[in-house]
Amino acid sequence: MSVTGLQLINGQWVAGEAGQYQATNPSTAQKIEPVMTQATQAQVDAAVAAAAQAAKSFANTSLAERAAFLERCADEIMALGDELTQRVMAETGYPQGRAEGERGRTVGQLRMFAKHILSGEYLNIRIDTAMPDRQPLPRPDLRLMNQAIGPVVVFGASNFPLAFSTAGGDTASALAAGCPVIVKGHNSHPGTAELVAQAVDKAAKACGLPDGVFSLIMGAGNEVGSALVKAPQVKAVGFTGSLSGGMALFNLANTRPDPIPVFAEMGSVNPVVLFPEALATKCQAVAEGFVGSLTMGTGQFCVNPGVVIGIKGEGLDNFVSHTKEALAKVGAGVMLNKGICTAYNAGVEHLGSQPGVEVVAEGGAVTDEAGFCSQAKLFKASAQAFLANPNLQEEVFGHASVLVECEDKAELLAVLGALHGQLSGTIQCTEAELASQMDVVDVLRSKVGRLVVNNYPTGVEVCDAMMHGGPFPAATDVRFTSVGTAAIARFVRPICFQNFPEALLPAALQNANPWGISRLVNGERTSSGF
Amino acid sequence: MSVTGLQLINGQWVAGEAGQYQATNPSTAQKIEPVMTQATQAQVDAAVAAAAQAAKSFANTSLAERAAFLERCADEIMALGDELTQRVMAETGYPQGRAEGERGRTVGQLRMFAKHILSGEYLNIRIDTAMPDRQPLPRPDLRLMNQAIGPVVVFGASNFPLAFSTAGGDTASALAAGCPVIVKGHNSHPGTAELVAQAVDKAAKACGLPDGVFSLIMGAGNEVGSALVKAPQVKAVGFTGSLSGGMALFNLANTRPDPIPVFAEMGSVNPVVLFPEALATKCQAVAEGFVGSLTMGTGQFCVNPGVVIGIKGEGLDNFVSHTKEALAKVGAGVMLNKGICTAYNAGVEHLGSQPGVEVVAEGGAVTDEAGFCSQAKLFKASAQAFLANPNLQEEVFGHASVLVECEDKAELLAVLGALHGQLSGTIQCTEAELASQMDVVDVLRSKVGRLVVNNYPTGVEVCDAMMHGGPFPAATDVRFTSVGTAAIARFVRPICFQNFPEALLPAALQNANPWGISRLVNGERTSSGF
Repeated sequence: MSVTGLQLINGQWVAGEAGQYQATNPSTAQKIEPVMTQATQAQVDAAVAAAAQAAKSFANTSLAERAAFLERCADEIMALGDELTQRVMAETGYPQGRAEGERGRTVGQLRMFAKHILSGEYLNIRIDTAMPDRQPLPRPDLRLMNQAIGPVVVFGASNFPLAFSTAGGDTASALAAGCPVIVKGHNSHPGTAELVAQAVDKAAKACGLPDGVFSLIMGAGNEVGSALVKAPQVKAVGFTGSLSGGMALFNLANTRPDPIPVFAEMGSVNPVVLFPEALATKCQAVAEGFVGSLTMGTGQFCVNPGVVIGIKGEGLDNFVSHTKEALAKVGAGVMLNKGICTAYNAGVEHLGSQPGVEVVAEGGAVTDEAGFCSQAKLFKASAQAFLANPNLQEEVFGHASVLVECEDKAELLAVLGALHGQLSGTIQCTEAELASQMDVVDVLRSKVGRLVVNNYPTGVEVCDAMMHGGPFPAATDVRFTSVGTAAIARFVRPICFQNFPEALLPAALQNANPWGISRLVNGERTSSGF
Repeated sequence: MSVTGLQLINGQWVAGEAGQYQATNPSTAQKIEPVMTQATQAQVDAAVAAAAQAAKSFANTSLAERAAFLERCADEIMALGDELTQRVMAETGYPQGRAEGERGRTVGQLRMFAKHILSGEYLNIRIDTAMPDRQPLPRPDLRLMNQAIGPVVVFGASNFPLAFSTAGGDTASALAAGCPVIVKGHNSHPGTAELVAQAVDKAAKACGLPDGVFSLIMGAGNEVGSALVKAPQVKAVGFTGSLSGGMALFNLANTRPDPIPVFAEMGSVNPVVLFPEALATKCQAVAEGFVGSLTMGTGQFCVNPGVVIGIKGEGLDNFVSHTKEALAKVGAGVMLNKGICTAYNAGVEHLGSQPGVEVVAEGGAVTDEAGFCSQAKLFKASAQAFLANPNLQEEVFGHASVLVECEDKAELLAVLGALHGQLSGTIQCTEAELASQMDVVDVLRSKVGRLVVNNYPTGVEVCDAMMHGGPFPAATDVRFTSVGTAAIARFVRPICFQNFPEALLPAALQNANPWGISRLVNGERTSSGF
């Protein structure tokens, strides 16, 4: 297989009829072959219609059938071999290790969802059996299960060409739930999108699934994305990206004749709180860990630590010294595309020009002028300056961070209290110290989706217990995660069967519990039948 | 205790300072004493500030403490005795049996949530323990639990002065989750609201809870409701009522600087499908059951059957005859207030004036001109008329319904396919017949939250397996129910603890599992500790 510039619509590979464009290699600023094509409104309509057509039969596939499909997707992605990782590297500037690591995460996610749906946990089965003799009124038989919500649109993310794009976490969780998926590929990595879509298409066909179960649509500008979100047959949207992009989709979806949920994960500044004893006992390790987290992937992560908060003193001064030393060893980084690089440079310039803000540490300067490279920066500001100026907690996507120096604990609490909603919050501390600072934990808990102690926020584990989401503006809906098995909950809805003949019920709801699922039966949790 | 006209703000009973009004007895159109008062923006702000102040300590109460509070609320409501039921009857026109039955449901809901939270099910605990030796990277310890979302605003519902108002399902589920609640009482039954609030206040004080944990705000017009939804400290809204009312709140909440979820249950027409064999074998029972469901509570239920769909023939003619006979025995009904009565009369007039629509059965005529009474109606239209005219599936709140006569099965499927989202869908059938008509089930499944066979949709059971919600416009978020234990999911959000010292974790997440909760530990469901 190779990149052709075609799109996958209703099981057919077709040229987009709205125009052409080419991807750009961010390391060299050179165009990448071949020419890619953009979809028309009619092509969007065809993809959506095919998804709607496929929705019922796909929703009615068994857990085992969908698990086999997800496993096959993983196999086919691996079968793309080096062509895929080379294309990722060309389209993103990522080194080989990152491309291979992200591929591993992507196929791991697919296999995780395969395993997870087989457990039936996500069906959230609840059965209340009939009580015909209850007074004053009998109770009918009532059985609840989750079912697929319907066709889902997934937007590819700039910074995760594999793990949060074509067959990434949103797609994997939607397919696992039994929802057809239409991916709007990201224009920075269209070739990667196409290769992965080829793999998913092969898997779908090998598994005998209907054509509309998965489509890939490409298009520059906002027209294609808007058309997808407005399509009546679409029932939910997954997005990872900027606040402005996420809110545009959210507002569009809420003003449809029938509003639909948009799960937009829009990033945040992921505060890191430095406690005094941590700085007194392990300052260099804390600083080096911070620099590693800040500069990983040129800082292009939603959970990049963009604000660091500590109390003035020798410990914090030492932290700055160690950070300065460690950061100086990190070379300039390639950014994902020209737009992100330009925005980063403008962002750091804007930050640096704010009153009371100074640069206290820098990465290596940009020496390669050909590609879209940038320099890491650590700024410093007083808590007073931070509290007075909302610009200081605006995310600058990339390897920049602001150290907020507080006079005392009260100021530290005030700074935390002033933060917007966050994906994560981190505390560097000793355990004894943490026990005496649970008020800090409480404030941070009210602000974040994930609370990290003595780790750094980057390196989001894909597992049952992950929460990757948070209070607005980190995400549009604080009740859902976009990473880990719980992400499937975004794409299902409960349906209740009342007094339904038992033999005609879906297997998961039948008395015998043929799939051996853990269920809540008359208030008791059990995996047995009855 | 007695009705005073005061409101509960920050634990104090105070007079609203924005104006005065009186409730009206819908049976007599007479004013009810005493004069009630309306809150100012400053009073709204005070209630919201108190809720925000109480949020952290209330969220940190143990499951046992909150369960005791809910039980105490139920006890205090029962202790109000006849004064409460008399006031309900005066403010709603409901007969004593309904008032007492609804009180029973209300205290039953409170006790159900008390029991449910003690099980810990709603916490959705997931634990993935550390794997320090994993290659290429270690896995940190990750633990997920649900926590309270924060202050919740609940709007009292016109038709459930107890079960969906001051201490109704929304309030009970929010308090169970650990969220402070601010109730905006419904202006049709302010005295009922005040009495119930007195009971909740007594319970809160007896349990030593902070003042802001529960407030009651009253106000005519939309100002007070809008102010509550716009208050920055409010994190979610529960509403049961009209489409226009629900959408006004939904749009308001989505245009806040930080959008918050509005769970609006906005009713629907709850289609009832009549299969031929059911009409051939049990026509009279089907018709009488339908009339009972249609006229219960003067039809003032969200799940009232407003559309009946069958295939032309002798069976359907017989259904009409039996319905005509049964409906004629049902007297005119008192409606909840003048506005609802006026809207009902306008709605049936509008329906009756649509092309191809005729009245085929009626309840007893209105004889008591003093109160807000109305007459039940069954209209008939052809499937073609129904498909051509969206007015025919608009909800007319009250005891009116439209029988849609289809030429054949294909037309029946077309009618079902044209329906908007619904709270419920009902099929009257024989079991053998249902087995051969699973295509009808599939279409209905895609349209409803609850699928009812050989029951009627009214009489919503409060239990684990209930789904009271549905695709838009039945509700704003198809993924949640407002009735039953699953309703608590609206008011919690997940938080993940990464590498957090075990001794400092919330009890539900500790290794030993001190509360004996069912948890997902490394992918396996268990109630044991480790």
